[in-house]
Amino acid sequence: MSSSLRNIAKNAKLNMSRRIRRTPFTNKVEEFGVSDFTVVNHMLLPKGFQNTVEEDYWHLNEYVQLWDVSCQRQVEISGPDAFKLVQKMTPRSLKSMEVGKCFYIPIIDENAGMINDPVLLKLDDDMFWLSIADSDVLLWAKGIAIGSNFNVKIKEPDVYPLAVQGPKSQDLLVSIFGEEIKKIKFFNFRVFDFLGTKQIIARTGYSKQDGFEIYFKGFEKYFDGEEMGEKLWDIIWKAGKEFNISPGCPNLIDRIEAGLMSYGNDFTIENNPFECNLDDYCNNDEHEHIGKKALNEIKKNGITQIIRGVIFDGDPIKAIGKPLPVLSSKNDKIGQITSGIYSPRIKKNIGLCMIQKQYLEKGQKVLVKIKDNILRNGTITSLPFPD
Amino acid sequence: MSSSLRNIAKNAKLNMSRRIRRTPFTNKVEEFGVSDFTVVNHMLLPKGFQNTVEEDYWHLNEYVQLWDVSCQRQVEISGPDAFKLVQKMTPRSLKSMEVGKCFYIPIIDENAGMINDPVLLKLDDDMFWLSIADSDVLLWAKGIAIGSNFNVKIKEPDVYPLAVQGPKSQDLLVSIFGEEIKKIKFFNFRVFDFLGTKQIIARTGYSKQDGFEIYFKGFEKYFDGEEMGEKLWDIIWKAGKEFNISPGCPNLIDRIEAGLMSYGNDFTIENNPFECNLDDYCNNDEHEHIGKKALNEIKKNGITQIIRGVIFDGDPIKAIGKPLPVLSSKNDKIGQITSGIYSPRIKKNIGLCMIQKQYLEKGQKVLVKIKDNILRNGTITSLPFPD
Repeated sequence: MSSSLRNIAKNAKLNMSRRIRRTPFTNKVEEFGVSDFTVVNHMLLPKGFQNTVEEDYWHLNEYVQLWDVSCQRQVEISGPDAFKLVQKMTPRSLKSMEVGKCFYIPIIDENAGMINDPVLLKLDDDMFWLSIADSDVLLWAKGIAIGSNFNVKIKEPDVYPLAVQGPKSQDLLVSIFGEEIKKIKFFNFRVFDFLGTKQIIARTGYSKQDGFEIYFKGFEKYFDGEEMGEKLWDIIWKAGKEFNISPGCPNLIDRIEAGLMSYGNDFTIENNPFECNLDDYCNNDEHEHIGKKALNEIKKNGITQIIRGVIFDGDPIKAIGKPLPVLSSKNDKIGQITSGIYSPRIKKNIGLCMIQKQYLEKGQKVLVKIKDNILRNGTITSLPFPD
Repeated sequence: MSSSLRNIAKNAKLNMSRRIRRTPFTNKVEEFGVSDFTVVNHMLLPKGFQNTVEEDYWHLNEYVQLWDVSCQRQVEISGPDAFKLVQKMTPRSLKSMEVGKCFYIPIIDENAGMINDPVLLKLDDDMFWLSIADSDVLLWAKGIAIGSNFNVKIKEPDVYPLAVQGPKSQDLLVSIFGEEIKKIKFFNFRVFDFLGTKQIIARTGYSKQDGFEIYFKGFEKYFDGEEMGEKLWDIIWKAGKEFNISPGCPNLIDRIEAGLMSYGNDFTIENNPFECNLDDYCNNDEHEHIGKKALNEIKKNGITQIIRGVIFDGDPIKAIGKPLPVLSSKNDKIGQITSGIYSPRIKKNIGLCMIQKQYLEKGQKVLVKIKDNILRNGTITSLPFPD
């Protein structure tokens, strides 16, 4: 097989259709020169603009970026049994959760396999949003509710998160929404007025920088002949100019350095929360939930593999399309890198790696198989990557 | 906004990652020059090779093509309550279904909204595969089973359908698997030996041509140093040369002409089976199932819209990335075209269109909004499109 034929595929285009849903901001990201997309929750997620991932990384570290993360779909669960259902879905106790809080929660199945790892927003005592990664949690929640005869309403509301990320994000949002922005603590949200509508803004985001997510409620009404979503984008963009704003998207270098995992990439339904370092969210002695028995069993017997960071030598790699095998010094496969890229700060290649537990210690030497017959020296490290 | 900026987006690349899963045949479709992909069930689906959609259409009408439709993931439901669960999921009665049969079934939620429209394969009295369109039916089925305490096992097996479609497909498969291929009736399957493994072959497929789907079970074993899946591709390819075989994919012209719908494109969870012309699969007086009450309610009150074909004037259109509005002669929006393309046989543009019921009659004149301020004359027609 020739490498030129390989390149066709590597540069393969994305075929657009209604099934791959556009967002209220897709016109804008097109206008701003989006170069590639991925698909998350049956929706477009921009993956790059005109700068390189590295240029975007440095920019994100210093200024502020505007990300269309509408693909973080909300699963809205409301009604008398809403709390009961949400609590049944996760090993994390929600007993102490107050309205206005955001909780990162693992959702697991009866075998303790990961179904998703959303951010849960408590809108009211009987109303929650699950801001989900890439799996149809709507169907999972609805299936459980129907089988259990729970009195709940479950739907995907017209809500499209727009992220404002980077150290200048607070200053930017203060200039639009006022000083109250500063009162939003990490993993909390508040409600703000935008052109006469109520919009939820949380201090959250898929980066290690300061940042916010505006849970834009996509009213289909127009303002000055423009869609409300595009109006929001334009207002932020205009106010952002003095903060050197740029269009962006979750940055792979920043994400890996921060140890932020991606469902489907770094872990799947085949993995349990302990393998994903989510022990702190598995306080499962306090309440009943799906997978509790399996989780306790795993806790008792111990896990066989876990996600760690790996730093490895060789020419700078670009994002990897498929996992890279990780080998022991004896050439046995002991793990795989599921997300990887060159870090210009660490000045080495870095990756998130599911590795057998006997190799999990920081400083462990490993080999990374870049291509057939090409091995690179690597070292296991803790997450997030050390500064 | 300049049109050149628009074009960047129209030609946007697909960002590859582990989350967008490769198949046992992805190396092969890359080798054969795939030009674009879409994503279905978190997996790559090729959408084109080096020929145009029109060239592929004529080829599919005359010869035989090999399609990687691995994204038609199987949801395997087995165990003592398997029949009970599957029957609960669909308004189509499965009472008379025999082992070896394939049934096209609507899956609906409690509001009679479409969750999926898979092909159901009965492997045994207590074992079924749902060969699904683009939604996580695995989570739906598991959620119901957990809530209902059903005694079932539900998983996604390592099965990757490979379609052989076109009028020469029978001759081709006979040359590989023998005369028994001819005994497979439409929407039936049989089990065949392939290099010492058992493989299911069904006379099904997402085209209006004769064709088969090989439910390739992706054993991770090697044959002559080659992956089994690639070996299967190669054997079919080699035998197919005398039948003028070509790599291919579901053909949009053929699909629309045949009236074959696509979940997420032509209908969604917002639609009920009657709107999708699936009345024949809603014999729901015979058994209990999810959505029965809602379905009876809709039956009683009637539907407000339905899917029809539309034939319309103007320059040949390429596949549409977002729905085209359909207007009445008074310029009111009365529907939308969800899949559309130029048909070289009908020599007009054609589309699948969800249209208000007062406009459903064959011959109804409508207007199709191609772009802002550009309207084309159209006519409603029945499905499949008339010969």
